[in-house]
Amino acid sequence: MIDQDRLLDRFRPLWAELAEIGRDPDTGGYLRYAWSAAELACRRWFVDQAARRDLTVSVDGNGNLWARWLPDGVDPATAAVVTGSHFDSVPHGGGYDGPLGVVSAFLAVDELRDQGFVPGRPITVAAFVEEEGSRFGVACLGSRLLTGGIAPRRALALRDRSGVSLAEAMAAAGADPAAAGPDPQRLAGIKAFVELHIEQGRALVDLDAPVGVASMIWPHGRWRLEVSGEGNHAGTTRMADRRDPMLTCAYAVLAADAEARRLGAHATVGRIEVRPNATNAIPVQVRSWLDARAADAATLAELVEAVVSRAHARSVADGTTVTVVAESASPPVEFDPGLARRLVDAASTATSDVPATTSAVPGSTPVPVLPTAAGHDAGILAGHVPTAMIFVRNPSGVSHAPAEAATDADCVAGIRSLAAVLAELAAR
Amino acid sequence: MIDQDRLLDRFRPLWAELAEIGRDPDTGGYLRYAWSAAELACRRWFVDQAARRDLTVSVDGNGNLWARWLPDGVDPATAAVVTGSHFDSVPHGGGYDGPLGVVSAFLAVDELRDQGFVPGRPITVAAFVEEEGSRFGVACLGSRLLTGGIAPRRALALRDRSGVSLAEAMAAAGADPAAAGPDPQRLAGIKAFVELHIEQGRALVDLDAPVGVASMIWPHGRWRLEVSGEGNHAGTTRMADRRDPMLTCAYAVLAADAEARRLGAHATVGRIEVRPNATNAIPVQVRSWLDARAADAATLAELVEAVVSRAHARSVADGTTVTVVAESASPPVEFDPGLARRLVDAASTATSDVPATTSAVPGSTPVPVLPTAAGHDAGILAGHVPTAMIFVRNPSGVSHAPAEAATDADCVAGIRSLAAVLAELAAR
Repeated sequence: MIDQDRLLDRFRPLWAELAEIGRDPDTGGYLRYAWSAAELACRRWFVDQAARRDLTVSVDGNGNLWARWLPDGVDPATAAVVTGSHFDSVPHGGGYDGPLGVVSAFLAVDELRDQGFVPGRPITVAAFVEEEGSRFGVACLGSRLLTGGIAPRRALALRDRSGVSLAEAMAAAGADPAAAGPDPQRLAGIKAFVELHIEQGRALVDLDAPVGVASMIWPHGRWRLEVSGEGNHAGTTRMADRRDPMLTCAYAVLAADAEARRLGAHATVGRIEVRPNATNAIPVQVRSWLDARAADAATLAELVEAVVSRAHARSVADGTTVTVVAESASPPVEFDPGLARRLVDAASTATSDVPATTSAVPGSTPVPVLPTAAGHDAGILAGHVPTAMIFVRNPSGVSHAPAEAATDADCVAGIRSLAAVLAELAAR
Repeated sequence: MIDQDRLLDRFRPLWAELAEIGRDPDTGGYLRYAWSAAELACRRWFVDQAARRDLTVSVDGNGNLWARWLPDGVDPATAAVVTGSHFDSVPHGGGYDGPLGVVSAFLAVDELRDQGFVPGRPITVAAFVEEEGSRFGVACLGSRLLTGGIAPRRALALRDRSGVSLAEAMAAAGADPAAAGPDPQRLAGIKAFVELHIEQGRALVDLDAPVGVASMIWPHGRWRLEVSGEGNHAGTTRMADRRDPMLTCAYAVLAADAEARRLGAHATVGRIEVRPNATNAIPVQVRSWLDARAADAATLAELVEAVVSRAHARSVADGTTVTVVAESASPPVEFDPGLARRLVDAASTATSDVPATTSAVPGSTPVPVLPTAAGHDAGILAGHVPTAMIFVRNPSGVSHAPAEAATDADCVAGIRSLAAVLAELAAR
């Protein structure tokens, strides 16, 4: 248990350094939008952490950060084992989603050095930009740009809710938007990518396991439903004369929920924008965003089609019109099965001295392999390099909200698992 | 038709002076919130118009404007005939709602002077503050304060969407918040109040009449429904584990519509605020505003009770909680029947040379007497002084939206009707 205690003593102060950056004292949630002051503060912290460890920092043309440990005698051209995650948050999100993967990466490097491990290839800590898509609407924007998954021209023109474009936000932070785009050379320099992430659900709680390994990511996407009607006076317009887009939107919200339950899929309308959004005015337009996910692409397509078709049918009755825009679509991602198996073995060994919460025998809890319905930079990179993910148990089961949680002990179990698989992947 | 043409020549340039103030060039709608730069510009215009006509301007403690024509030899203590309306708009509202009543009031004064009419009592043009309640949430705030319908302490603490209080907004505009409150002396100085207003519906179009007279205002109010659930990840949270307040809100929106149709009443949810309003997060809270109106108080109560009860029932299934806050409630208003009759007679005579659009015989169109479902400062004043309203036909039938419209000829018919009733009420 010495490793466990030493790591706890290291984890806590390092975690505390980030804890107040971008935190809303009222909700306890985080506002760390990509390229915002809060995210830039996290990025400065990253550079400082790299410097403390003699890691060489580089920033790619898309703003993703890379801190490389190049051991003595290793050819700099050798492909690196990369680990990391992101700093940006959803509005009022939890503090673990993203940053835990970056903090764990730095601490895994410390752990390996403490163990006297000398890697046979570089080990690089990475932090990707705009994973949540909360500012510019497209999730995993940094890794998509890096891998050519989105054209830089399209990405740079994306605008946030205040009308600021990605190009403008980058320029304001001192980054050159002209450098954005695919970076095949950097990609070719990655031997494998491992992302550690807080679990976004209750599976590890139910299975009584501190860490798990990802098998796949559900296909998922975002569809914008724009319902247009006729703005009018809320008090005086006869019900029969109305063309109220709020009704069509409300119907679509309930249809999405019902269809997702019917199909064993997930659907959410978490964002709505009403014009003009006045108490005494029938809206002229209501825009809503459908987040839909399913275990396979066919079910996802059926789900979205059912919701859109029901919204269209209702719009006839409401006298409104519905336009659907697919904002992003992510196909299913199968993580490298061999790498996942090695990760299970490494994590099992690394956490064998961690007592399970409810089992009597330490080490008796196997490391579960789980699918996830959440997108990740690992899901984008998986199309290009062998990729794996470690999940750390989240006792609340809550994600993208302040109630997201992890125990320090589980975080340390995650770091030990990460260090173990990095050691194996970067062995001489 | 000489009066008609002369008034047209006067109406058009005067109307043009206001046309660009607070107008959004994109939507064509107006943003003239109470105490905003746009409304303050309208208020300066009011003072200027009064000066051009040698009317004496005073501002009451609530910011309402009064421009008095005190004829030679009339005792200043004589109670005045007052006419006017408001400048403030709903977000992206039309240009006629409010300002038409103020512009018509000044032009009615001009018309009376042209006719050589010498009143036996003062005639006062008024403009009330925050009629729409679009900034601080309570409609007819200026007239409510004037008449003691709302406590100044409560009113001054009301905040707009940016957190600015009425007290702060008044102070920023150079008004003294400490002076806000009831003004019984000013109220006692009002012999009668007549408000001219653009029609908010299609009744005058259907009846083929340029102007109409109000019989009553439907009881109406605003209820805020706050639905709370559990913020969580939109992708990973199992449908069965959700406590999604958006579902309860959507159900309430549809229930309000269905119940209003069942009861022959009006119900609208035109404003929604979602926290955190992120595409990939199940909201933690959704607030919606129910605007409900009915021909009588019992039906209104039944409507609101039905919506709230159905929202509560649904919240049990959704695992959410619903809190209902009554933000404002206006009882039915019966306008002075004698005054309404006199207004009908005056308007009939004044518009007898206006050809009806579809009837063959000029003057064959009677002046309709109509109820309205919209609140007005006249509805507040009606509890204290004899009050009447003139409606000017709105060919689009649309209100609280840029499509609101009126022909210049109908506006002039309204001004002539207003001048005629002022002459009668202020006769020596």
